[in-house]
Amino acid sequence: MAAVVRPRECSIADTLELVGRRWALLAVRELSHGVRRFDRIVRNTGASRDVLTLRLRELEDAGVVRRERYSDHPPRYEYHLTAAGWELCDVLLALMRWGDRHLNADDPPLRLVHTCGQRLDPAVVCAACGGPARDGVRSASGRGALPDDY
Amino acid sequence: MAAVVRPRECSIADTLELVGRRWALLAVRELSHGVRRFDRIVRNTGASRDVLTLRLRELEDAGVVRRERYSDHPPRYEYHLTAAGWELCDVLLALMRWGDRHLNADDPPLRLVHTCGQRLDPAVVCAACGGPARDGVRSASGRGALPDDY
Repeated sequence: MAAVVRPRECSIADTLELVGRRWALLAVRELSHGVRRFDRIVRNTGASRDVLTLRLRELEDAGVVRRERYSDHPPRYEYHLTAAGWELCDVLLALMRWGDRHLNADDPPLRLVHTCGQRLDPAVVCAACGGPARDGVRSASGRGALPDDY
Repeated sequence: MAAVVRPRECSIADTLELVGRRWALLAVRELSHGVRRFDRIVRNTGASRDVLTLRLRELEDAGVVRRERYSDHPPRYEYHLTAAGWELCDVLLALMRWGDRHLNADDPPLRLVHTCGQRLDPAVVCAACGGPARDGVRSASGRGALPDDY
């Protein structure tokens, strides 16, 4: 009997399952900019209304987005990031940095200024030592590590 | 005449256009683990061969992946990350951290150890001051910033 082949267990895949659809992350991007109303999220992302409705519902079910009614007649809602949703901004910043460097190097569309006063250049570091994270992985273990790795 | 409505210009959207398809980022994940051969990437991601072929070709065209022949008869190729591809690992680490915290908090599938000896907990910081990036955005400007923001 052939062994059952299962893909690698992985939090990246799990996260992509939730937010890997283009419009989901772009909706989170708009919320992080303080754009909370459906029509404006549609306008700023270019998503269709149907697709955006679906994605926002999935994000709400996943605890990433919270819906608040701001008008009773007619009923209208605003969307807010939860704490978990706000943490997704780390993913957005990493995506933005890569695109700024490799796709829009001559003229990045958005300049963010950090509270320190400098232009924000997001870096992914090891929380323990502050060194660059990606170049410093020494070993991997756990059920998501496979014998063929490295 | 109605104004032409265009979505926000944005490096996040541009990057997602390239790597926002689930299998593209999971292929990059495998390459970052040193898994370079097509059959093993198929096995570890769970992608179909057809879809993975397409995604690897797009990644090659985009300069994220480089293909190298390792056998002449029959012709067989290995895939490697370019420098730009390697930088995408920042995105993967941010996705992994979010999934570890919010989807697999009780038992993260993969434990990475950093060269500093500590378990790698990736943090996205301001490269200038080292402070948390996402909580410290003070202002946004550029053609990707819209009047309604904030």
